[in-house]
Amino acid sequence: MEKGIATVCLSGTLEEKLAAAAEAGFDVVEIFEPDLIGCPLTPAEVRARADALGLRIALYQPFRDFEAVPPPALARNLRRAEAKFDVMDALGADVMLVCSNVDGDPIDDDDLAAEQLHELAERAVARGMRIAYEALAWGRHVDTYDHAWRIVAAAGHPALGLCLDSFHILSCRSDPRGIRSIPADKLFFLQLADAPRMAMDVLQWSRHYRCFPGQGDFDLKDFCGHVLAAGYDGPLSLEVFNDVFRGSDPVRTAIDAMRSLLVLEDELCLTALPPAPALDGYAFAELAVTPQSAAEIERQLEALGLTLVGPHRTKPVQLWSARDARVVLNHGDPRGEGIVAFAIESADATRSVQRSEALGAPVLARRRQPGEADLAAIAAPDGTSVFFADPEHDWQHDFVALDGRGGEGPPAARLAIDHLGLPQPFDAFDEAALFYRSLLDLEPTSSEELAAPHGLVRSRAVCDLGGHVRLALNVPVLAGLGDPAPQHLAFACDDAVGLARAVRDRGLAPLRIPDNYYDDLDARLDLDDELLAALRELDVLYDRDEHGELLHFYLPAVGRVFLEILERRGGYGGFGARNSPVRMAAQERGMARWPA
Amino acid sequence: MEKGIATVCLSGTLEEKLAAAAEAGFDVVEIFEPDLIGCPLTPAEVRARADALGLRIALYQPFRDFEAVPPPALARNLRRAEAKFDVMDALGADVMLVCSNVDGDPIDDDDLAAEQLHELAERAVARGMRIAYEALAWGRHVDTYDHAWRIVAAAGHPALGLCLDSFHILSCRSDPRGIRSIPADKLFFLQLADAPRMAMDVLQWSRHYRCFPGQGDFDLKDFCGHVLAAGYDGPLSLEVFNDVFRGSDPVRTAIDAMRSLLVLEDELCLTALPPAPALDGYAFAELAVTPQSAAEIERQLEALGLTLVGPHRTKPVQLWSARDARVVLNHGDPRGEGIVAFAIESADATRSVQRSEALGAPVLARRRQPGEADLAAIAAPDGTSVFFADPEHDWQHDFVALDGRGGEGPPAARLAIDHLGLPQPFDAFDEAALFYRSLLDLEPTSSEELAAPHGLVRSRAVCDLGGHVRLALNVPVLAGLGDPAPQHLAFACDDAVGLARAVRDRGLAPLRIPDNYYDDLDARLDLDDELLAALRELDVLYDRDEHGELLHFYLPAVGRVFLEILERRGGYGGFGARNSPVRMAAQERGMARWPA
Repeated sequence: MEKGIATVCLSGTLEEKLAAAAEAGFDVVEIFEPDLIGCPLTPAEVRARADALGLRIALYQPFRDFEAVPPPALARNLRRAEAKFDVMDALGADVMLVCSNVDGDPIDDDDLAAEQLHELAERAVARGMRIAYEALAWGRHVDTYDHAWRIVAAAGHPALGLCLDSFHILSCRSDPRGIRSIPADKLFFLQLADAPRMAMDVLQWSRHYRCFPGQGDFDLKDFCGHVLAAGYDGPLSLEVFNDVFRGSDPVRTAIDAMRSLLVLEDELCLTALPPAPALDGYAFAELAVTPQSAAEIERQLEALGLTLVGPHRTKPVQLWSARDARVVLNHGDPRGEGIVAFAIESADATRSVQRSEALGAPVLARRRQPGEADLAAIAAPDGTSVFFADPEHDWQHDFVALDGRGGEGPPAARLAIDHLGLPQPFDAFDEAALFYRSLLDLEPTSSEELAAPHGLVRSRAVCDLGGHVRLALNVPVLAGLGDPAPQHLAFACDDAVGLARAVRDRGLAPLRIPDNYYDDLDARLDLDDELLAALRELDVLYDRDEHGELLHFYLPAVGRVFLEILERRGGYGGFGARNSPVRMAAQERGMARWPA
Repeated sequence: MEKGIATVCLSGTLEEKLAAAAEAGFDVVEIFEPDLIGCPLTPAEVRARADALGLRIALYQPFRDFEAVPPPALARNLRRAEAKFDVMDALGADVMLVCSNVDGDPIDDDDLAAEQLHELAERAVARGMRIAYEALAWGRHVDTYDHAWRIVAAAGHPALGLCLDSFHILSCRSDPRGIRSIPADKLFFLQLADAPRMAMDVLQWSRHYRCFPGQGDFDLKDFCGHVLAAGYDGPLSLEVFNDVFRGSDPVRTAIDAMRSLLVLEDELCLTALPPAPALDGYAFAELAVTPQSAAEIERQLEALGLTLVGPHRTKPVQLWSARDARVVLNHGDPRGEGIVAFAIESADATRSVQRSEALGAPVLARRRQPGEADLAAIAAPDGTSVFFADPEHDWQHDFVALDGRGGEGPPAARLAIDHLGLPQPFDAFDEAALFYRSLLDLEPTSSEELAAPHGLVRSRAVCDLGGHVRLALNVPVLAGLGDPAPQHLAFACDDAVGLARAVRDRGLAPLRIPDNYYDDLDARLDLDDELLAALRELDVLYDRDEHGELLHFYLPAVGRVFLEILERRGGYGGFGARNSPVRMAAQERGMARWPA
């Protein structure tokens, strides 16, 4: 099916919006009237621009407050419509979106509405145009699609049909199954938007918080299924009002938008993406270090029981490992300090890359020497490289194993990468969640808000069903306040208290947690005295939910990265969000308790 | 009365919050439990810190999900309470805030709630403490103050009383008059917060959008009147959860908070601020210029009919004027380009400064030479200097009048400064509105959201009743996206079309407005053809409301400042917000139409 986007979804001037839509591969655009009004190009010039970009202008929108008005207002509205038909004629747009009347003092009279829309359709057909009538969720008298359909059916004009908008229908929890009984030739246009479920005024919700399919809580697969079952075969067109997208790079937003439609088409079996292979955890995480941070990170890794395996044959990177935990230290990455890459164990790395590429992810150029493993990688929205490793490619062979090194050797107990904590650029949070989710076939958790000392942080995790690959994405609720959040790398072990003690015995201090925290923990949970004493002594935090328990501690941040060690008991699947404010306050103070 | 603030209102660590509260002059603080839990100081050390700062810890809060539970939960809750009493004892806090049960699976049984609160009060009184019970607006069974009062009355324990919170009461539109009939000795604590009226889930509204009294839409004067009439004489204490304040400088926020209470106390006749003198418009606006921008700004001022009066006797500034429009160009301001100061004609400049000082505004040191006018100034939150001029001080005398200069002389028609458009730092928008409003006794308009090419802009004006002093404050809805908005200086005239023509005849091009704008204007408003043609020819924008009409045009931005010229017809009191997106899109393109 044709894929479309409304210009209001994208940031910038109309010319920039058109260019971005074309670059992302859209077939059609909806022209949002204010974008045209603020544009110095004539409508004919806009049409020529769109033609040159391979874009069809499928809809002109919105035309407001038209129907069910007294005769003098009708005359004014018809004059206004004729002026817009002139514009549409020059644009080459043949469908006008008419929203149900909100501010035009409409009369609550469906017959009058039908009669006046019939008159408008008569005018439209004389110009070779059609009218798509849409019920706004906050329309004065008409606020559901079935009410709009009754009026359109009563008008009975071939040039009058419906525009269905998933937001207006799903926000009000209208039952979309009724769409199936609307004749296909009356479904003139389909606008798609997702949104997080929010308990707020629907107008404000619609104007600020819409997002692309797959980024919110609506079931768009189900919704579109009904529309397709009715026989609709026009464009799938996105109309998203979103405060963040309004300020983001329009090309990146357009690619994000296209990704959302590709995933939706795949779910609807309208197209087939390469299926996501099964994942089996992290092959490695790669930290870029500076000469200053390298020594401190190495000391922390050693204290956790990781040892230096050896250097890469040709690159300035080293592999450290212990059991299933592998960390690559990169001594020369131009992106500066931090987690610059990670590798995921995929059952089929080639197909993982094919799927990523089909979803518009940039595939990174490979630079390798003969004999080295051919690990393919893609770039995430924030520039992190995501590698795919599979049994075919023995990437560890590229590292020269050292003998007689490694301190005390690997610990007897399990150690593996549990998750990565990746702060996202403010304008890339929803994009990143959809990116990881769709490329890797992960499930998102609901988002949480955590109180940091200088502002709220929004956090959302994406995880595979097997619990092998977990990513915790976060972003400040408000940008421009406070400091950028640090990244983190979390290792899972089977005995957090024991490992905390081992770390301390090796001369390293975990992040100090205030006594007040343990007093509160005791007041709330009435923990076993011995456990509480051990937690308090070793600065280990604790949480529990209906599935199990979490014990976790932190090492002091090194540059913009810190390490976490956690022990999941039972089926605890969270990330200790309740403890995050305490951890962030402790990090703010930069305190570390050194052994006496 | 004692003035208090909850630590949750302020950003930073607990130590920073206490220091900020003390610096702003608060008498008491409420300790918000998570602030203590994240703090490495013991409760006794926190008490010592507060003592040293002259702060009394008046309340410990919140204690959640206590009442109306089955016996096993009661036992756990009492154990939890005793642990918190230990903390309070060390803190020196003798009142605990208990919120109505939300998540603790409470039973809908007021007798049980009363019985269990009685038991808690018994435990409290044994420790010399008291319990203040508060109905949360989202409490499971108890969500109004009168319901909470019925339970407290039924419990009949001297150590059990109410905490009243203006947000919980006014957000739900409870009638606060009932407070008058509650005995004063049962009103243990009063928490104050304002909020903008928002149609959203009350929990989200409360957690993110509370603000200080005078910054929102609640009638706190009326509310507090009822509480005082009941005989309450405890602290007036602010409890504000606000996403922006969480990330702002805590000292500035605390001063802003104190200002809100001072204004409220003045309204309640609990104290008397120096009354605000009548204002009579702008004496001048002062623009800092660079050598590059000076020539362009001077060319624009000349085109508008302003002439150079002359240089200042001792400072590197020049005065330009035409009728009532006076602009000072400052060639050496360290704050860089832009509107760095403005002066307001006050009936009594001395009293204006006294009022400002009483409201915590920084009074700027004066640097003047003998014989120069002694203009007093204060610093606004964004660093702009606000001068007060009155008939006593002939500041224009400080400028050396030039002869034989001035081009074509002043225009025959009226010209005066209508308003200033001042973008505010993201974290200073509510603060700035309260600052100008309270110091100058201005009335705020409701805030509007305007679509700029790279994000939404929130705009709110503050104006005096006479329409002599208008300030349009704006801020991006989301920080960190797009470019900083430009400042602007708007002149009022009696003939915008004529002045636009004169400007063009003097070789200067107004900001070009797209033809599409005029086509839409015609479609919407069916303007007189001749007027429409003139507007279109001269790039003059048009708006009308129920009071009158606005004609306005813009000159191209110079650095971060642009000039607007407007003509208000009839009683038009707005700022042409409807045209702002078109203006911003035109500025984005940086286009200027030069005369052929």
